[in-house]
Amino acid sequence: MRATVIHGPNDVRVEEVPDAAVRTPTDAVVRVVLACICGSDLWAYRGVAQRQPGQRIGHEFLGVVEAVGAEVGSVRVGDLVVAPFVWSDGTCDFCREGLHTSCPDGGFWGSVGSDGGQGEAVRVPYADGTLVRLPAEAAGDERLLTALLALSDVLATGHHAALAARVRPGATVAVVGDGAVGLCGVLAAKRLGAERIIALGRHTARTDIARSFGATDVVAERGEAAIAAVRELTRGHGAHAVLEAVGTEDSMRTAISIARDGGAVGYVGVPHGGSAGVDIGQMFNRNVALAGGVAPARAYIPELLADVLAGTIDPSPVFDRSVTLDGVPDGYRAMDERTALKVRITF
Amino acid sequence: MRATVIHGPNDVRVEEVPDAAVRTPTDAVVRVVLACICGSDLWAYRGVAQRQPGQRIGHEFLGVVEAVGAEVGSVRVGDLVVAPFVWSDGTCDFCREGLHTSCPDGGFWGSVGSDGGQGEAVRVPYADGTLVRLPAEAAGDERLLTALLALSDVLATGHHAALAARVRPGATVAVVGDGAVGLCGVLAAKRLGAERIIALGRHTARTDIARSFGATDVVAERGEAAIAAVRELTRGHGAHAVLEAVGTEDSMRTAISIARDGGAVGYVGVPHGGSAGVDIGQMFNRNVALAGGVAPARAYIPELLADVLAGTIDPSPVFDRSVTLDGVPDGYRAMDERTALKVRITF
Repeated sequence: MRATVIHGPNDVRVEEVPDAAVRTPTDAVVRVVLACICGSDLWAYRGVAQRQPGQRIGHEFLGVVEAVGAEVGSVRVGDLVVAPFVWSDGTCDFCREGLHTSCPDGGFWGSVGSDGGQGEAVRVPYADGTLVRLPAEAAGDERLLTALLALSDVLATGHHAALAARVRPGATVAVVGDGAVGLCGVLAAKRLGAERIIALGRHTARTDIARSFGATDVVAERGEAAIAAVRELTRGHGAHAVLEAVGTEDSMRTAISIARDGGAVGYVGVPHGGSAGVDIGQMFNRNVALAGGVAPARAYIPELLADVLAGTIDPSPVFDRSVTLDGVPDGYRAMDERTALKVRITF
Repeated sequence: MRATVIHGPNDVRVEEVPDAAVRTPTDAVVRVVLACICGSDLWAYRGVAQRQPGQRIGHEFLGVVEAVGAEVGSVRVGDLVVAPFVWSDGTCDFCREGLHTSCPDGGFWGSVGSDGGQGEAVRVPYADGTLVRLPAEAAGDERLLTALLALSDVLATGHHAALAARVRPGATVAVVGDGAVGLCGVLAAKRLGAERIIALGRHTARTDIARSFGATDVVAERGEAAIAAVRELTRGHGAHAVLEAVGTEDSMRTAISIARDGGAVGYVGVPHGGSAGVDIGQMFNRNVALAGGVAPARAYIPELLADVLAGTIDPSPVFDRSVTLDGVPDGYRAMDERTALKVRITF
């Protein structure tokens, strides 16, 4: 089969690799129908996050079950399914508590020895604990299928940020980051009843999506000017809930600074600035909480799926470009150069 | 009147100062009956926290109302009252939400121009928003009065840490720090229904108090050994809730490392290690939250007071030495040298 392989910084290639196959009785093989490139893949692409040359890449996909091991009971060959961005056994303490990302049997697509999502097929460990069935009818609806692909990561991650930031009905929310996760954070905050949503971003195409997702205000400034702008919009107080969806030192500093006293920052941007942006003195004096982390997407998919199917939320606009598998290297370049927001891969 | 004045590192003196007096219609003057020295006063005493030479010091006291301004309605001359460690107006958005420490009219006892708690009397701004009445009968009960003094700061602060760490019935809790706040954190965690409470500390006199307050386990190790010991006590998982009551880089690092995935660190130790102990990468991967800060003691006093009066909690054992006002410099030395846990000042 063919799949995307990362050989080094700025070097992803689509190559022939061994076919995905059931290896243990709890495995399934999923023939990928739709996948995509994540902002977090760019950390590897840029060489900031280390990868071994030859590792697979991609962690967001949906597709059709092609084979199952003898112990798989929840999905059958032919089922349309979506995978969260980590696999998990579904039975341990953490999975039962909804923190599937801490499953001791869990793992990340594309880690050494595993298939990545940006390929023709994926061996899925712990299929019962990992995959979520989608209605077969969705297969024929490209817009819906695209929206469902967002369950894999960005919508679930935006939702995690909103929960971690304690978004409540009536809350004033600020979202730092106008990437796909930040935009999904706007959607999630709106879904949780936020009254006012301030989106920080300066790419009009993106902030237009933010507005369509429920943002009531857009702040195009950065750094100190952004902090001042958010404070001015909030009677000097800041936002009850701040979603941090970037992961740099600056974005964390901004997020903490625009939180209202007693508020919370829900951070889901993979931290690449160390702890330098975490101003503990400011947090202490103002009782600003910091929560979040890697999103347990598997826990959230059922509830978000219901809303996507009902049409009450539609994250599909975050995908603004499509490539075929051969076009994946172009897709990375486009996202790296910020000419594309989020690239969908069709098969 | 006489009060404690800080002139520089290791230099606190008891001196004649201007009498406390009502200056605005919302002021009261409280004649101090009982005060104490706080672990956080030592940061100033050691020169780590800056003070202007001549500033007053001390932020925990209870006493009898001696005078009130024309607009004071909630307390009367002769009332026995306790003060939280910051004053607050009681009417702003933050006070009404229970975050009195963010009151824009609030302030800290001993800040420039204000009286400190370690003196014969204190001018209390916003008396209605600040003071809490105590039953007159308590005046004759030294043990009870001592317990009530803890409402001013350490008991409220331990409670804040427990709330921030999300202590729930049945939870496994770890407490970093065996000072008065850490010990009160044990008491607060027990009160909130913690099933297992691991106290980290190596001064037997203190960990004995921790056990009497509800600690089920004591870990005397530090650093990596402490982390390993807590993990061993918790099937490798760590504690659901960790109370950080020290404020150094090491203590924060330990606190985050012993939290269970998905758990929370409630920190109330005044941060003196910057953000260096905040391992954001570890927090991210394991979804460990960090919350807390300066405790809004005023918000908690009524509920904690009820339990102290009912006898269901008794923080008085954290006070292990008494001095008169003249003995305050000796009290600082004793706490600085760790020969005293918490020094009470009688008048």
